[in-house]
Amino acid sequence: MGPGPSDVSPQVLAAQARPTIGHLDPLFVGMMDELKQLLQYAFQTNNAMTIAVSAPGSAGMETCFVNLVEPGDTVIVCRNGVFGERMRQNVERCGGKAVCVDNAWGEPVCPTRVEQALKQHPEARFLAFVHAETSTGALSDAKTLCALARQYHCLSIVDAVTSLGGVELRVDDWGIDAIYSGSQKCLSCVPGLSPVSFSERAVAVIKQRNSPVQSWFLDQSLVMGYWSGQGKRSYHHTAPVNSLYALHEALRLLAAEGLQQAWQRHKDMHQLLAKGLQQLGLDFVVAEPYRLPQLNTVYIPNGVDDAALRSRLLNLYNLEIGAGLGELAGKAWRFGLMGYGARRENVSICLQALSEQLQQG
Amino acid sequence: MGPGPSDVSPQVLAAQARPTIGHLDPLFVGMMDELKQLLQYAFQTNNAMTIAVSAPGSAGMETCFVNLVEPGDTVIVCRNGVFGERMRQNVERCGGKAVCVDNAWGEPVCPTRVEQALKQHPEARFLAFVHAETSTGALSDAKTLCALARQYHCLSIVDAVTSLGGVELRVDDWGIDAIYSGSQKCLSCVPGLSPVSFSERAVAVIKQRNSPVQSWFLDQSLVMGYWSGQGKRSYHHTAPVNSLYALHEALRLLAAEGLQQAWQRHKDMHQLLAKGLQQLGLDFVVAEPYRLPQLNTVYIPNGVDDAALRSRLLNLYNLEIGAGLGELAGKAWRFGLMGYGARRENVSICLQALSEQLQQG
Repeated sequence: MGPGPSDVSPQVLAAQARPTIGHLDPLFVGMMDELKQLLQYAFQTNNAMTIAVSAPGSAGMETCFVNLVEPGDTVIVCRNGVFGERMRQNVERCGGKAVCVDNAWGEPVCPTRVEQALKQHPEARFLAFVHAETSTGALSDAKTLCALARQYHCLSIVDAVTSLGGVELRVDDWGIDAIYSGSQKCLSCVPGLSPVSFSERAVAVIKQRNSPVQSWFLDQSLVMGYWSGQGKRSYHHTAPVNSLYALHEALRLLAAEGLQQAWQRHKDMHQLLAKGLQQLGLDFVVAEPYRLPQLNTVYIPNGVDDAALRSRLLNLYNLEIGAGLGELAGKAWRFGLMGYGARRENVSICLQALSEQLQQG
Repeated sequence: MGPGPSDVSPQVLAAQARPTIGHLDPLFVGMMDELKQLLQYAFQTNNAMTIAVSAPGSAGMETCFVNLVEPGDTVIVCRNGVFGERMRQNVERCGGKAVCVDNAWGEPVCPTRVEQALKQHPEARFLAFVHAETSTGALSDAKTLCALARQYHCLSIVDAVTSLGGVELRVDDWGIDAIYSGSQKCLSCVPGLSPVSFSERAVAVIKQRNSPVQSWFLDQSLVMGYWSGQGKRSYHHTAPVNSLYALHEALRLLAAEGLQQAWQRHKDMHQLLAKGLQQLGLDFVVAEPYRLPQLNTVYIPNGVDDAALRSRLLNLYNLEIGAGLGELAGKAWRFGLMGYGARRENVSICLQALSEQLQQG
């Protein structure tokens, strides 16, 4: 019950352990066609350029920036936690100019401030923000922010690492242009893959680049030869075959449950956990309307030894909870309720263990 | 028996299917300390900066180039197959200047030509070459090439994707400065990880860079906070936990067998296979002294339908062999004898199946 990697279901682990076959084997290629459709369902998109990057979420982030941003481009970057700041670093490493819109840690991104920045920077080409901040547990209004991006002729780049599969997310309806996620959060797959999707507008920008993409490994114009699904696939790099078995199975389980049902389950489990945490006297970092169901961040009570308590939970109950990150290090705990981990039994174990151990300080 | 991913042993698949735990969990961190030592053994190095990049071999290649090469740097790049050419593209995407030394496909890199280029380009800072060319099956003399690099004050960058674990490779004795490999060749681990190692001289170059590394994800100065092994690990990205279980187990099996014994086994199986292939009238692309034991490339006999024959081997015998790549597409087959796949029973099945199917054309 940390901030991810989340608990992986036995079915997904078993799928991953199937014998490794070649990434150009017809059986594997058939599975990849299904995987693409399952990813499109999870993202709620018809985008043809919907794939899983062969590396963790940070590489998914980099994939979006290196393919879209060219030297000199202005990008409005919203920062309300660790991952907005990481976006800024990506923009600058691509030679772009980052204009930062800041909100306090624990707050959502403020659309009014974003609109102000868009007005002040008519040269901006992209608006980048984090849908669900893993470092704080705050949910931002992606629908409104993407509409603003479009109104001001920007493409939107959205971090959905922690949101995909856990809260409402509609790539096509909301007009998201580039989005990346991680396999190890609400999809409850093993860590190491990053689903990404690009809109037709984003693909057009990639095709009209003046400079080559600085990363060979993440260059989508090369990678798409493998993922195109139009008959013969061309070799780019060796696909992480077994991790892709696992992702296929995790997405199949999500589709079998239904996306809306999964969102509702995360909400239900969150309400149970939140009620219990509050009964234990723990205060949430994020105001109620912006709380992520899948990531519950609460302040550590005065007098409690952060590391010692987490250590006891791990050693006595086999229960991981997350430490604070960045500004919240040593000040907060993060309780994940992600994917397969968002189950009633986990909520119960967690609340009982906490209640027993908080008394010891 | 293709060019990789190679056959993965049941023990490695089982290790990979162990429950996912947090990448900062003390148990996992302990495993990572062991993994680092096992990687150092496989590479025959004491380099402190020895890690597994959380992505396939192509990302390992990019890790070496983006961390070492700065805009304007000259790099001598040896090309005798697909992967030398990929190195050139990496150099140029880093803003470096590539000076190419070419050999025909199937030939090893020629040290005389390399020395000529080093003499003609005293400004060169790096010499980059492929130890074992996966596209042709040719082995180059890494010891001699690295000695030349040092003689002419260059750092060596070596592609060991297909060589690690399959043929003699001694990072420290040969003075290799930067090296990358893949998990899915002679280590017989699942695809998706890339072991890399940097010498102290290479680390010094990274520390003295004038410009930031263009990739955030692959920036070794950031990644090393997690791999340093000095007590507390800092978060960089979510480690691919289950793939790392698999790599740990694959390296443990290699250490249990012994590196020299593994090299000898590859040699023995190659000799059996080569004898059989020649009895079937198949000619090797690579001259005898430069043949890789783990990758046997032979010309497709006249009148044989390449794709149809490979398809029959796959469907009738559950046997994958590799198609030709690049210049050799449609002209050659590649028979892998890598890691767990380098077994007597595989050689027998392969020769018998080929003998049955070649008669049909």
